[in-house]
Amino acid sequence: MVDIATRVWNHKWKIDPIVRSLIDTDFYKLLMCQSVFRNKPDTQVTFSLINRTKDIRLAELIDEGELREQLDHIRSLSLRRGESTWMRGNTFYGKRQMFTPEFMDWFEALRLPPYHLEKRDGQYELTFEGSWPEVMLWEIPALAVLMELRGRAVLGEMGRFELQVLYARAMTKLWEKIEHLRPIDGLRIADFGTRRRHSFLWQDWCVQAMTEGLGDRFVGTSNCLIAKNRDLEAIGTNAHELPMVYSALAEDDAALARAPYDVLSDWHEEHEGNLRIILPDTYGTRGFLDNAPDWLAGWTGIRIDSGDPAAGAEIAIDWWKARGEDPKDKLIIFSDGLDAEKIAELHKQFAGRVKVSFGWGTMLTNDFKGLTAGDTLAPFSLVCKAVEANGRPTVKLSDNPNKAMGPVDEIARYKRVFGVGEQERLEVVV
Amino acid sequence: MVDIATRVWNHKWKIDPIVRSLIDTDFYKLLMCQSVFRNKPDTQVTFSLINRTKDIRLAELIDEGELREQLDHIRSLSLRRGESTWMRGNTFYGKRQMFTPEFMDWFEALRLPPYHLEKRDGQYELTFEGSWPEVMLWEIPALAVLMELRGRAVLGEMGRFELQVLYARAMTKLWEKIEHLRPIDGLRIADFGTRRRHSFLWQDWCVQAMTEGLGDRFVGTSNCLIAKNRDLEAIGTNAHELPMVYSALAEDDAALARAPYDVLSDWHEEHEGNLRIILPDTYGTRGFLDNAPDWLAGWTGIRIDSGDPAAGAEIAIDWWKARGEDPKDKLIIFSDGLDAEKIAELHKQFAGRVKVSFGWGTMLTNDFKGLTAGDTLAPFSLVCKAVEANGRPTVKLSDNPNKAMGPVDEIARYKRVFGVGEQERLEVVV
Repeated sequence: MVDIATRVWNHKWKIDPIVRSLIDTDFYKLLMCQSVFRNKPDTQVTFSLINRTKDIRLAELIDEGELREQLDHIRSLSLRRGESTWMRGNTFYGKRQMFTPEFMDWFEALRLPPYHLEKRDGQYELTFEGSWPEVMLWEIPALAVLMELRGRAVLGEMGRFELQVLYARAMTKLWEKIEHLRPIDGLRIADFGTRRRHSFLWQDWCVQAMTEGLGDRFVGTSNCLIAKNRDLEAIGTNAHELPMVYSALAEDDAALARAPYDVLSDWHEEHEGNLRIILPDTYGTRGFLDNAPDWLAGWTGIRIDSGDPAAGAEIAIDWWKARGEDPKDKLIIFSDGLDAEKIAELHKQFAGRVKVSFGWGTMLTNDFKGLTAGDTLAPFSLVCKAVEANGRPTVKLSDNPNKAMGPVDEIARYKRVFGVGEQERLEVVV
Repeated sequence: MVDIATRVWNHKWKIDPIVRSLIDTDFYKLLMCQSVFRNKPDTQVTFSLINRTKDIRLAELIDEGELREQLDHIRSLSLRRGESTWMRGNTFYGKRQMFTPEFMDWFEALRLPPYHLEKRDGQYELTFEGSWPEVMLWEIPALAVLMELRGRAVLGEMGRFELQVLYARAMTKLWEKIEHLRPIDGLRIADFGTRRRHSFLWQDWCVQAMTEGLGDRFVGTSNCLIAKNRDLEAIGTNAHELPMVYSALAEDDAALARAPYDVLSDWHEEHEGNLRIILPDTYGTRGFLDNAPDWLAGWTGIRIDSGDPAAGAEIAIDWWKARGEDPKDKLIIFSDGLDAEKIAELHKQFAGRVKVSFGWGTMLTNDFKGLTAGDTLAPFSLVCKAVEANGRPTVKLSDNPNKAMGPVDEIARYKRVFGVGEQERLEVVV
């Protein structure tokens, strides 16, 4: 039985816009947005797309018209009634009314601000300027659009059965990872793969496969739309953009040294329990923890997002011990460069010593590596970052110099202020 | 958009009957049926199901009620108008009106005769008795029903995503075989997998994947319904049941020795060109060819369906040479125990020396080997054969004693009459 209406609907472009909702984004973006809306609403920022994988020439792969069409579509989105109801009425991390009525009123009226798009040297320069709480919401959808359009450019050349087999292979690949993870007792893992997903439909499939395959070992997804549609927990806390912008706003070196703690001080007032997760690596994990105020040691956990993850976890454990905390009561969330084997290895190494949890990103929702000739669908390293705040450049150091960002002299200044010495250089794959 | 009508339709059992048409069968069955209808219409035969893989206890796996429901459904089928139009109007092997108006009138009125079903020792005894042209049409659907019900029993226990990944794996497996075959210049391959297919939908998928993946190297399918629906060539010539029944009808040893040639003499009158394919192994290939009349050497080709295929091909080539024929003008069709590697190997060995073609069966349409725990979907060796004709037992020897069938004393008599000596014993996998 052919459903003619569906067929006709399928003729139209809108069948699968890449970003289909304002909450088709990471949960931590909404949490941070509320925090920024409350604490720094008037900050002017610039976010910019950065493709770290230079040999993938996005402007040659992706048609500019298609890109503009998708970005324009995102600007046409506003919060739907059911989405607003979910944000207002749902419990997040066990708490009701996570989002204040003031924030929700603002969010309901929001449309994303304009974008600036240019081609340069085979790459797209895509930037967003404006007030921080608005501009920051571009990050995830912009990344998702670029990732998916690159995929669509490759898929457009393929035959119908070739396509089906491509997805068959990708499904098999993920399922084998799930089978690898299933036997691990006490595993806790969440989907963090929105920004670099192969596509929305694929992320949705991956999340459902994780739900069936891992049961309660799969604790939720960072994607709010999928969490809402699939009745899952929305997962996420905070990210580098908070310390990066706070630091750029600092008037002098002393204020700069304080800035990352100011971020968490603001956060401390707003959140408790499992939302009190330290992201210590923006300007070097070791220095950050050494200089941290005592009240931070009382926080629930630490997220390790760069550098060697096991080394980072050992630093965290030592720090808790030095501050008189029992690491067994603490949570470590690994979220950088994970794949099934690494997850199994880290779990084996740290389960029992601390509480362990995983935020699995790119290799969950975009592992098409090796599935096409020339590896044309392999994931690559695309980010969209705050590069300026109130006219001043931002800086990120992280625990891996290959992930450092910012003007050279500012990087040097930050290294001095935060006491960052030699760092191990690790390849950034995704 | 949910298509409610489709959903409601899906609630009903009839959504996927295992056999959905009287022409959901092998093309050679229809050719042979017409030949029998013309030459031996009054012969009374018994066909019987034989599971050569004894450790698969079908009566414990398959519910008797479900089996009867599917067999009863087949008895409710009659030739549809479009199917009749296709048989009457289509060209087969380049010829119009392959099926005579007399045969078509009879076929249009046909319903399949009753079946007899009993359980014994964990197996089903399933037999069909009646006039040869009617009973013979049970073979393929009966096999397809048993194969698919066994699969459904296993699939019924699986989760939704587990199922999807199962098919993803099977698709990937077949596609890898197609990729292995694609580079072979001059390859000619057809689907012969109806009888032992995993399911109708799966065979249909496999055929479409072969079409896209192999282009004109894929020459067609033995399945008439799929050939009709997908606009492909229907492929097939004749099978062992003709010499088996002709031989059982022979009044004495001299008539028995003549019987296999009588079959081909009748066939010679009805068909020409690529339909003149010798199936020489029913009572031993070597003896059959040594004693063959000269007009048989003028036929187009030979199908190798048991024994070591390369050895069989060499025998055929030597025979053609001995009869003054140029093997380069002759066709060898391999159709036994094939998989992609064997196909590639045989093609390499014989292409150029003769024309080579392949009829790929079980491992094309039912390769779920290794895809479930306990290998519960691995294909197995099920056949449905003529065991009696006008009250006398049939015998098959073939070029592999493990495929021999019939009463012990009759096998001995046939071996004597056809001069069959020692044979190499080869494992029958499917």
